[in-house]
Amino acid sequence: MTSPVDALGARAAALDAEHAGSDLRHLFDLPEGVYLAGNSLGALPRAVPVRLEAVMREQWGAEAVSAWNTRGWWHVPRRVGDRIGALVGAGAGQVVAGDSTSVALFQVFRAAARLRPGRRTVVTDPGSFPTDLYVLQGVAADVGWQVVLAEPHEVPAALDAHGEDVALLALSHVDYRTGELWDLEGLTAAAREVGALAAWDLCHSVGAVPVQLDEAGVDLAVGCTYKYLNGGPGSPAFTYVARRHHDAFEPAVRGWHGHAQPFAMRREHEPAPGIDRVRIGTPPLLSMLALEAALEVFDAVPIEVVRERSLSLTSFLLDCLDALVPEVELVTPRAPGRRGSQVSVRHAEAFGIVRALAARGVVGDYREPGIARFGIAAPYVTHSDVLATATELRRVLDTGEHLADVEAEGPVT
Amino acid sequence: MTSPVDALGARAAALDAEHAGSDLRHLFDLPEGVYLAGNSLGALPRAVPVRLEAVMREQWGAEAVSAWNTRGWWHVPRRVGDRIGALVGAGAGQVVAGDSTSVALFQVFRAAARLRPGRRTVVTDPGSFPTDLYVLQGVAADVGWQVVLAEPHEVPAALDAHGEDVALLALSHVDYRTGELWDLEGLTAAAREVGALAAWDLCHSVGAVPVQLDEAGVDLAVGCTYKYLNGGPGSPAFTYVARRHHDAFEPAVRGWHGHAQPFAMRREHEPAPGIDRVRIGTPPLLSMLALEAALEVFDAVPIEVVRERSLSLTSFLLDCLDALVPEVELVTPRAPGRRGSQVSVRHAEAFGIVRALAARGVVGDYREPGIARFGIAAPYVTHSDVLATATELRRVLDTGEHLADVEAEGPVT
Repeated sequence: MTSPVDALGARAAALDAEHAGSDLRHLFDLPEGVYLAGNSLGALPRAVPVRLEAVMREQWGAEAVSAWNTRGWWHVPRRVGDRIGALVGAGAGQVVAGDSTSVALFQVFRAAARLRPGRRTVVTDPGSFPTDLYVLQGVAADVGWQVVLAEPHEVPAALDAHGEDVALLALSHVDYRTGELWDLEGLTAAAREVGALAAWDLCHSVGAVPVQLDEAGVDLAVGCTYKYLNGGPGSPAFTYVARRHHDAFEPAVRGWHGHAQPFAMRREHEPAPGIDRVRIGTPPLLSMLALEAALEVFDAVPIEVVRERSLSLTSFLLDCLDALVPEVELVTPRAPGRRGSQVSVRHAEAFGIVRALAARGVVGDYREPGIARFGIAAPYVTHSDVLATATELRRVLDTGEHLADVEAEGPVT
Repeated sequence: MTSPVDALGARAAALDAEHAGSDLRHLFDLPEGVYLAGNSLGALPRAVPVRLEAVMREQWGAEAVSAWNTRGWWHVPRRVGDRIGALVGAGAGQVVAGDSTSVALFQVFRAAARLRPGRRTVVTDPGSFPTDLYVLQGVAADVGWQVVLAEPHEVPAALDAHGEDVALLALSHVDYRTGELWDLEGLTAAAREVGALAAWDLCHSVGAVPVQLDEAGVDLAVGCTYKYLNGGPGSPAFTYVARRHHDAFEPAVRGWHGHAQPFAMRREHEPAPGIDRVRIGTPPLLSMLALEAALEVFDAVPIEVVRERSLSLTSFLLDCLDALVPEVELVTPRAPGRRGSQVSVRHAEAFGIVRALAARGVVGDYREPGIARFGIAAPYVTHSDVLATATELRRVLDTGEHLADVEAEGPVT
């Protein structure tokens, strides 16, 4: 008779063999052990240091300021934006890279107010990542919106209640704590039904879940690139503005890079035609060109295949947890269509669990309140990694390593 | 009898010998020829590729998300900020690095309005870099300011005229076209006399001219780091907020990184104590750590010595231009105390001159209207470079190479 672990081991091996075509570990320089924090900071793609070395020596070093022309630096935000656009179902010319997610959200929310003048309500999820709430509250104070908090399942009722007073529905595609994947298409349609705009935060779905922004009729979207896109710590965010809104999109932060004729050095701001008006200042090119190299990972497999692999991995993780650590409380939906690419469990000692697992070489992360997250970056996580996570978690709980007293740790983002 | 060029050559050699101690060319990987565009994009410090390779492989690659703690990534904006603060006379804890200059200006201008409620006028130079004007106009529209345009020499009269209605005086320390250095101390004092705040854009002085922000009583300042600080294309900007304003500084873009307790994941924004409240989102760490390595150049010589060398170089450039190309119109002040670290000339064919000089290996840049700029980044420019610039300019004008018809070029920032 085989033990449950042996049976799971055999399944892991079989699943890894089945999905060998989408195993892209050879494209990464991975940390030792099992790395399940790619939903926080994606691993290092091997192409990045090579590219950045060339950018520094051959472009910045050898050509210096001339590289703005010779290497097309001025157009990098568009070039990278289109590359990301292809992963989120955005036709060319609707996405730019640049700034942090917070700044991108600010520009998008402020512009939304001008696109829906007279409407005074914005609807958002109280469970959004804090950034989204903070920025939205700031914009609401600027433009005189009331903020109505509604979890995504309550959104249709909130839209009904506030009807044509709703300027904007602002949601995250995947909940950063639970990993729940929300119905982007249906909720966008509901917003549009009352004439509101739909803005989506794609931080936890881009690069992990196929997104169809154009098809779903999304108005505005923002996302970060250092999670499943592996762009490196703090790599620039991206902004999507549906083409139909370009002419009326008014940037609140009026930067020189978003000007129609920057080199005319005019005194008055005139927004550039198209998506370029979303640009603000000079982008951090080393970080942005690192991101561009990182995106080549997605040349190797279509995003739909990444998603298939991700679902196989998260499903298998659920099976392993059920079999080996049935006492932990799962907070991620079991239905595959309702999951992003992470599995989260709630536990009174979740912080200790994350720490003890890390000591055993399995890196996940902790989020208030009491949630341990296991991010599944499909390109470099295997079914064997997933099983190892569950077996190490079993050992941690059996040994009580998660209860050990340790010095308080600093932040992990 | 020696020719003027021979005499200047002998002086160049003597001056280079005299200033050998502040010649830091060995710390840079310079482009070929004479590079006088360091006021646009500083040259590559040798320390940068080495550092960034280590950051990518040893930090991001090997430690991944853990590096936020182990490598102190969370604190890099403060760490780099203090390092820059030392160059601009700011005591520790008053400068942070992050975002683009445009976004930094937006935060500073918006906060200024809250620091001086009830006042409805902002005074600024119509000759400011376009970014500053665009951002200020946007903020003025947000907060209901009237924008009064006054060149720096007209500022005292403008302050007199608008008196206690002036919330803010926003100026650049060095004019980006002419290279004129304005009286930061005197104009700050004039602003404070009417109870207004003084905000300075240090883009064209930081790293070239000693600045005494604390001593001068400056309230707010912003600067970029890719010019004389050599941080690389689009390296993050920095923001100075005088300590006395920290508690009342209200960030308009309310980011998670500026929160008092980010990891508590609260729904309401609470600005961090001190300068940290100026932070917004996750900073582009590759760009920021490149900047940190670049700043080590300033460990080699005090900023006062950089300034002495710069003045020797720009004075010598004026002499060379006077002797060899007396027909070009100088727009940079001749008085050393009124010059930043560039020399600019006006010419109907300035664009052609810049292009023809570049073909001869002397890289300056062009700015509307009709201005050729020669940026003198003292750490890596020599008196011999300066003489070569004037002799090549003589040749260009003699041969008429600047009149050649060429295809329109793209932007140079």
